[in-house]
Amino acid sequence: MIYVAILGHGVVGSGVAEVLRKNRDSIAHKAGEEIRIKRILDLREFPDLPYAELFTKDFQDILKDPDIRIVVETMGGLHPAYDFVKSCLLAGKSVVTSNKELVAAKGDELLEIAKENNLNFLFEASVGGGIPILRPIDQCLAANEVYEIAGILNGTTNFMLSKMIEDGMSFEDALALAQKLGYAERNPAADVEGHDACRKICILASLAFGKHVYPEQIHTEGIAHISSEDVKYAAASHRVIKLIGRAVKRGDGHLYGIVAPMMINQSSLLADVRDVFNGIMVRGDAIGDVMFYGQGAGKLPTASAVVADVIDEVKHLKARKYLFWERGSEDYVVDYTEGQTAVFVRLKAADKQAAKNQIQSALGQVEYLTYPEAPEDEVAFITQKLPEKELDAALQSFQGAEVASRIRLADL
Amino acid sequence: MIYVAILGHGVVGSGVAEVLRKNRDSIAHKAGEEIRIKRILDLREFPDLPYAELFTKDFQDILKDPDIRIVVETMGGLHPAYDFVKSCLLAGKSVVTSNKELVAAKGDELLEIAKENNLNFLFEASVGGGIPILRPIDQCLAANEVYEIAGILNGTTNFMLSKMIEDGMSFEDALALAQKLGYAERNPAADVEGHDACRKICILASLAFGKHVYPEQIHTEGIAHISSEDVKYAAASHRVIKLIGRAVKRGDGHLYGIVAPMMINQSSLLADVRDVFNGIMVRGDAIGDVMFYGQGAGKLPTASAVVADVIDEVKHLKARKYLFWERGSEDYVVDYTEGQTAVFVRLKAADKQAAKNQIQSALGQVEYLTYPEAPEDEVAFITQKLPEKELDAALQSFQGAEVASRIRLADL
Repeated sequence: MIYVAILGHGVVGSGVAEVLRKNRDSIAHKAGEEIRIKRILDLREFPDLPYAELFTKDFQDILKDPDIRIVVETMGGLHPAYDFVKSCLLAGKSVVTSNKELVAAKGDELLEIAKENNLNFLFEASVGGGIPILRPIDQCLAANEVYEIAGILNGTTNFMLSKMIEDGMSFEDALALAQKLGYAERNPAADVEGHDACRKICILASLAFGKHVYPEQIHTEGIAHISSEDVKYAAASHRVIKLIGRAVKRGDGHLYGIVAPMMINQSSLLADVRDVFNGIMVRGDAIGDVMFYGQGAGKLPTASAVVADVIDEVKHLKARKYLFWERGSEDYVVDYTEGQTAVFVRLKAADKQAAKNQIQSALGQVEYLTYPEAPEDEVAFITQKLPEKELDAALQSFQGAEVASRIRLADL
Repeated sequence: MIYVAILGHGVVGSGVAEVLRKNRDSIAHKAGEEIRIKRILDLREFPDLPYAELFTKDFQDILKDPDIRIVVETMGGLHPAYDFVKSCLLAGKSVVTSNKELVAAKGDELLEIAKENNLNFLFEASVGGGIPILRPIDQCLAANEVYEIAGILNGTTNFMLSKMIEDGMSFEDALALAQKLGYAERNPAADVEGHDACRKICILASLAFGKHVYPEQIHTEGIAHISSEDVKYAAASHRVIKLIGRAVKRGDGHLYGIVAPMMINQSSLLADVRDVFNGIMVRGDAIGDVMFYGQGAGKLPTASAVVADVIDEVKHLKARKYLFWERGSEDYVVDYTEGQTAVFVRLKAADKQAAKNQIQSALGQVEYLTYPEAPEDEVAFITQKLPEKELDAALQSFQGAEVASRIRLADL
């Protein structure tokens, strides 16, 4: 019999309790031991639940209980989750978390403490919800040099972009619908501004390349400035706009990372990742392109990933899993402006011929785009692949033309 | 230092030797031990290789060598691979194989021997080449009841169907191209007749549902009868034809399995799995739909999956992995004709109105399909979902009309 505790009885935490209780027998069979919840930490009360007697408001009831070998953290947010998880590891308890903010900010430190204490710290559910992604990267690609990870990592923004692409909705209407359906929070900043995707690409890059990448090191742009016009120009050139998180290990050992809306070809598999789904592409030297696809969020998918980690920790109570990465460093991630990219540009210009002359002289060959009923005062085009700095300088040099949109292209 | 031996120095075996030698340091780091090849079994001689001295033609040199802890089997075929692998396990050596024919036919028996001897028998590379799929099913979905697995499991036939769909090629031309490019063997029966896909769905179903499914229990149809006309009717109804392997755990505990060309909606993610790629969809109660995508074959992707298994066995030389399933039974898999399906039917009929009258009375409501330049003497339609037996009886009852095609639909 192995006793676990759950910190936080919100969407994911209550899902974990539900899965552990409902599938008790099959889980015991898979883990080789019965797993029982001993305590649940929450400031709220749930008197009507059949397991109401398990709740406590005092974290010490869990920390000081030597019977509890594994702690599941599903509170979210950095504090107090960080302090609680750290205390548990220092007290000799293995930890499972679904908290991407925690892992993205403090993963290296917590993995180090876990290693020093011969414990496990697992977090499969922190990226891609129920999609198995961290374990496959860690284990199955062991014989393979991964050099790039790129994907659609946030279901809410992907739902919104899908509505804009397929139903011609505006950004505002798509956001309102996402909120109505419960996909977006009332304060949607973490999703819409790209911070959620940023945390996930940080975790993926840290694991794949063995060194921590902190969220503040990754240039992050959201989708709030994407307009219906951008979507239509993209469609006219057989492309779609997706919010992409991307990390590339460069030949010089440094990391290039970015989160931003990007135009990708309709024939790309990622273009077909619609609605609230996630798709994560892993590129390796031996393996080529591998993609993982599924629901990136949701109570039960996420809870099932958490419980799978719990089962794995029960099976590895003595032998540690090898999941680990080292501390990050300031000079590890290169400035995103050092990257090269092609971009889609939409210019507002009264004199379109004058604008085209400037484009030609500043950027050389470009591919002009249009669509039926495109605004009369616009020139839209796709540049060649150029250093971002050069692109910015060229765009800033234009006279009598205003840059209404600037969206990177990605070859995915 | 852990010594391994490789049985067979063909495409995969030589890839394994290459990966183990080229990435020796990073593999030692990941495995926690240096891994060195001690012997390679092959009847041919390779005097020019830098590791020519490792070759032997005598299996006993490997079997009797107590230094060799792990044996990699990449010979393919059932014999002598089965006898060699069994002997190795009985002699206390863990085994890794990429041999789907072996695992599909004898997996239950070999897993049992491995378990009795506290050894590991791993075979990630036997399905989906380098795509991580068996481990995610076994581990990450531990808290999840998987009820269906379906996918594109054979790259060669998927390449051929892609050429027929996208370039309008005939079956014969597509096969000739696949042979020219080295994707198809000179004797392409194992691919084209569906046997390769059948072995893979057997392995997936055995693992996911815990009980062995033998290839002869799965009704298997190939793609040789698929015509350009079928492809065009499919396109006209926004569908594509793919060779699908499918296994469903029924509520009564029995298994329904089939390998056959099926029409699926263009909007399905599996429809976008093109060329030699594989895509495997796993459906679970908590997790929803999850898909794994990548190159299903090829020297280095497959070798990297084999080496990842070797690393895992080195890490688990003492503690067994839990991968296991029980023996199959005759009554476990239901007859495929007990399944229900909608089908696409193409009828050759001189009197089309008479044919339609018969269709109406035998099958009720159907959806008629056509396309510009469809043959004059054809009636094509899609039925409702009906028991296969009923469908067959209805189709056989037609007078003055000949069934030219009959292709199942799948809701994937």
